[in-house]
Amino acid sequence: MREEFRADLQIVSQLLVDMAEGVRAAMRQATHALLTADRRAAETVIERDAEIDDLYRHVEERVCDLLARQAPVASDLRAMITALHVAADLERMGDLADHVAKTALRRHPSPAVPAELRPIFIDMAATADRMAVKIGSVLAKPDADLAAELDRDDDTMDDLHRSLFGVLLGEDWPYGVETAIDATLLGRFYERFADHAVNAGEHVVYLITGETPPAAS
Amino acid sequence: MREEFRADLQIVSQLLVDMAEGVRAAMRQATHALLTADRRAAETVIERDAEIDDLYRHVEERVCDLLARQAPVASDLRAMITALHVAADLERMGDLADHVAKTALRRHPSPAVPAELRPIFIDMAATADRMAVKIGSVLAKPDADLAAELDRDDDTMDDLHRSLFGVLLGEDWPYGVETAIDATLLGRFYERFADHAVNAGEHVVYLITGETPPAAS
Repeated sequence: MREEFRADLQIVSQLLVDMAEGVRAAMRQATHALLTADRRAAETVIERDAEIDDLYRHVEERVCDLLARQAPVASDLRAMITALHVAADLERMGDLADHVAKTALRRHPSPAVPAELRPIFIDMAATADRMAVKIGSVLAKPDADLAAELDRDDDTMDDLHRSLFGVLLGEDWPYGVETAIDATLLGRFYERFADHAVNAGEHVVYLITGETPPAAS
Repeated sequence: MREEFRADLQIVSQLLVDMAEGVRAAMRQATHALLTADRRAAETVIERDAEIDDLYRHVEERVCDLLARQAPVASDLRAMITALHVAADLERMGDLADHVAKTALRRHPSPAVPAELRPIFIDMAATADRMAVKIGSVLAKPDADLAAELDRDDDTMDDLHRSLFGVLLGEDWPYGVETAIDATLLGRFYERFADHAVNAGEHVVYLITGETPPAAS
């Protein structure tokens, strides 16, 4: 029974690692589509979001199957509930990559991000990518220290988000309201991506240390 | 065992109904704060978000306790996993009310919503309120037809969201970028509130009919 549980848990963990990799790839490609007005890349992200959704369903099915067959208690049960939380965060991160891709597509062939904002979005995307990599790592090999780094990455994201508004609200903003609206929504997509990465990380820390996770943010 | 399960499920359902009522009250009060620049109302919403988060934790604890003690299978297990999903959606709806309140507070004593946009936000808020009421109703008494109405409400919300952008992008938009940014984010908060209500409704329908729920939107 115990060994069977371990094997099942291993399968669920692998699905979560696959989700993290899929989400990372999606956000990288969405950013590429955004910054280079690459229509094909944007379409690929949108098409492949269904694969992340499928992985989410597989995690849920596996967890339900495992709960029904093995009726785990205590820390094993906690691991199962945590897997559901992490999967939900990753699924949502995939949606946010999809939203970035859709924004790129809506403005195509014009770039959705004007030159003045490129450096901020490049940094936001790099931060998001670092966070997606860390989530993948802590899911593959639990590491509370690495998971805790996500908080600092999130601070970086929040700083970038503030600088974005600084540029948008500067007296010399030349692009008008439409571009400001796109930039506001894009900024929110990257920032929410980071929030979900932090949440997922906190759930993993909870699993490792027993510390109370937040009610989500 | 069966009767004990029913009693536990009843407690979880009541917690979800309490969450739905808390979330509805929060969004109503946040909208009031937004439209009347009522500082005290905004602060109350922000303070009371912790109560919704506490209810979310209670649902999780109850469900975990129930899974551990009773090891439900089949439809009983499905009901438990659904409760977790619905609770997560409601918790997030509470966060979105909190975001509306914070936007009201950030602009206080100025109103965050200019006169031209008031009718749209009044309608968005009314739609959100109707949806929150329906979620409370279907949680108290499962009703697939009522839950299905949420989709139509969501279409209304999407139409309102589009009209919002229509006004923001009109040639005669007189308020500049800052007000457009606030309106963009506020529009997104109401629209996401509706999305989560739809998700929660679909999970309840799943419980009633066995139809596959979506991977969240």
